[in-house]
Amino acid sequence: MPHRKHDSRLAVGLMAGTSLDGIDAALVRLAGPAEQPRVRLRAFVTLPYPPKVKQWIMRVAAGVQTKVEGVSQLNFLLGELFARAALHVCRVAHVSPQRVSVIGSHGQTIYHQGSAELIQGHVEPVDPNTLQIAEPAVIAERTGAPVVADFRTADVAAGGQGAPLVPMVDYLLLRDRRKGTVALNIGGIANVTVIPAKAKPLDIVGFDTGPGNMVSDALVQHFTGDREYYDAGGRVAALGKVNEPLLADALCHPFFLRPPPKSAGREQFGQDFVARYFFSRRRTRFEDLLRTAAELTARTIAGALARFVFPGEKIDRLIVSGGGAHNRLLVKRLVELLPHLTVELSDRYGLPVDAKEAIAFAVLADRTLHGLPGNLPSVTGARRAVVLGKIVKP
Amino acid sequence: MPHRKHDSRLAVGLMAGTSLDGIDAALVRLAGPAEQPRVRLRAFVTLPYPPKVKQWIMRVAAGVQTKVEGVSQLNFLLGELFARAALHVCRVAHVSPQRVSVIGSHGQTIYHQGSAELIQGHVEPVDPNTLQIAEPAVIAERTGAPVVADFRTADVAAGGQGAPLVPMVDYLLLRDRRKGTVALNIGGIANVTVIPAKAKPLDIVGFDTGPGNMVSDALVQHFTGDREYYDAGGRVAALGKVNEPLLADALCHPFFLRPPPKSAGREQFGQDFVARYFFSRRRTRFEDLLRTAAELTARTIAGALARFVFPGEKIDRLIVSGGGAHNRLLVKRLVELLPHLTVELSDRYGLPVDAKEAIAFAVLADRTLHGLPGNLPSVTGARRAVVLGKIVKP
Repeated sequence: MPHRKHDSRLAVGLMAGTSLDGIDAALVRLAGPAEQPRVRLRAFVTLPYPPKVKQWIMRVAAGVQTKVEGVSQLNFLLGELFARAALHVCRVAHVSPQRVSVIGSHGQTIYHQGSAELIQGHVEPVDPNTLQIAEPAVIAERTGAPVVADFRTADVAAGGQGAPLVPMVDYLLLRDRRKGTVALNIGGIANVTVIPAKAKPLDIVGFDTGPGNMVSDALVQHFTGDREYYDAGGRVAALGKVNEPLLADALCHPFFLRPPPKSAGREQFGQDFVARYFFSRRRTRFEDLLRTAAELTARTIAGALARFVFPGEKIDRLIVSGGGAHNRLLVKRLVELLPHLTVELSDRYGLPVDAKEAIAFAVLADRTLHGLPGNLPSVTGARRAVVLGKIVKP
Repeated sequence: MPHRKHDSRLAVGLMAGTSLDGIDAALVRLAGPAEQPRVRLRAFVTLPYPPKVKQWIMRVAAGVQTKVEGVSQLNFLLGELFARAALHVCRVAHVSPQRVSVIGSHGQTIYHQGSAELIQGHVEPVDPNTLQIAEPAVIAERTGAPVVADFRTADVAAGGQGAPLVPMVDYLLLRDRRKGTVALNIGGIANVTVIPAKAKPLDIVGFDTGPGNMVSDALVQHFTGDREYYDAGGRVAALGKVNEPLLADALCHPFFLRPPPKSAGREQFGQDFVARYFFSRRRTRFEDLLRTAAELTARTIAGALARFVFPGEKIDRLIVSGGGAHNRLLVKRLVELLPHLTVELSDRYGLPVDAKEAIAFAVLADRTLHGLPGNLPSVTGARRAVVLGKIVKP
């Protein structure tokens, strides 16, 4: 390693979510001990996927039958695009990529099965497994920087679900001696990290609360014929009224009542969910459906905290990040539903809402380079804390 | 790293070839500097693939359409089997796996495209790419040892073919100040590493000469209805006579005349080749076909040396390894066809013919842990020498 453990150092985090918008790249400066670094964001960019690439990933991830050569080619192609995102964020910050101590690349998830499942056509349950691609050897070669990638496999190998991994970084960057904190990320799915005051790693709990933007995005894409992808700022939803019967029905979905640990995805809140609860209400106006989707997200977040968190922990503040943090209506409703909490955006803590997940993978990569574990067994269910990821030297 | 650079250390190499026989595991003791270690084999085992796993890999590697979840599941399943092979070789040697400084896992190749190619259905040539699986995070978790895996991607990312990689180890372990050496490995395909006396890395040349056991194995499997897989020791071939017209035809295959660098696989010498040259001779006896296949292998090896090696380099010895080294007829013919060379088995240099490739990946993993490059650009065509593989910490 070129630097000493406490030196100030640059790191890049690369993140691509299941929404397939593109690749987020965050350049951060880390200072202080690897166990507890100080983090400052230097630059952040998003490199959208070219439409053809997005469609290719969609087909593969949707389980469309493909030859294995397609997976191999896509792995190398995404390696090139992730490398481009890393080079781009360095250029924006006027930093030579060779000065970057590590690039942490989440890769693109194309398959994830966090728990043993009986799959159609199999006699025995299939063991948990996960597949992220975007060849890190390509990223290392193009940038000249060490790369850490493939963060989820080690946790799965240790008996964990391989997700979520961001709670470790929430713990490192957002914990407080006196304040109980919930970090809320509203992506397609909404998830929370619960960080009691004076928390130790074993005290952390993290779980998915239900849909974040997934339902709202699906409605927008459906009603605009894919011309729009999301309700910017929640502006359309703000014009609508909540359809109370629809909301009451949706709130009875069993996922919301099940105690954590729990995780959700398109399997729970994708097309089937939207069709069953939303498209079946033909006489409901578009803006009312969007308003109801926003209300569902806000209520299930507040409900999950009331049911599973507040009884055991004293919580003082809610720190919001993710695309949903731009939805003013949603944030306003969270403030109203959680009157005893201070609701803040993660920006306030140096973590811009869109950049937080990419920043997290820069921090996790730094931990791996220093031989420190990156998962929280209390969150993922792993048997032990393990060093995450694979290291590729340039 | 737990040991100093010059300490004696244990390493395991795991290799699985395209023949899909199973997983070879070699436990070696390395001593001396990483740049030029001394290597001693402590134990060697082969863990055959369960028939169902073999068929699954065959289907995937043959390009049968599959869902991506199949690739992800197979990656984790092979990780478990590779881990088992590593644990097995440690048990045989009475060595605790925690004492192993590194496990080098080649993984199972399920797709390899070493050069840019115009593929059916694509408008532009597809960039080189390669895919080896057997999740190293699983191997690290089960053994408690650091793992280096995925050796080919870095060379491909640097513009190389990603193969062959064993020549670096041939150079390290078999070079001589006074003797010009050719290391010959006879697997499905036969390949040579040319190591002139006093060679430096840039002097090394390596290329495929043509079929090794591939044609013979295909004949045996065809004529025995898959009850036998190979002609053990070349015993059946030894009973036959060379079919001279068939041999003359086959020797005209353009691959044999093309100058190196060149590499071959099932694309050149698989079913199509066998059908065209061998199955079309209906009146030829089985043992004569096998004898002719052995002669083709021997003549194309000797011919390649005569055409492409002897004119430029003074060669004194041929060191043979691989499954074909057990074929006495083949080795006898090489001795006769290359009268001015000393023909030896690699056993003589502490590298049992079956273990040599697995040993090579233990040595390559040790290089990676020490930050040393593992490819030879003169052999793979890469723009530069690069550190190979991904490091997974246990």
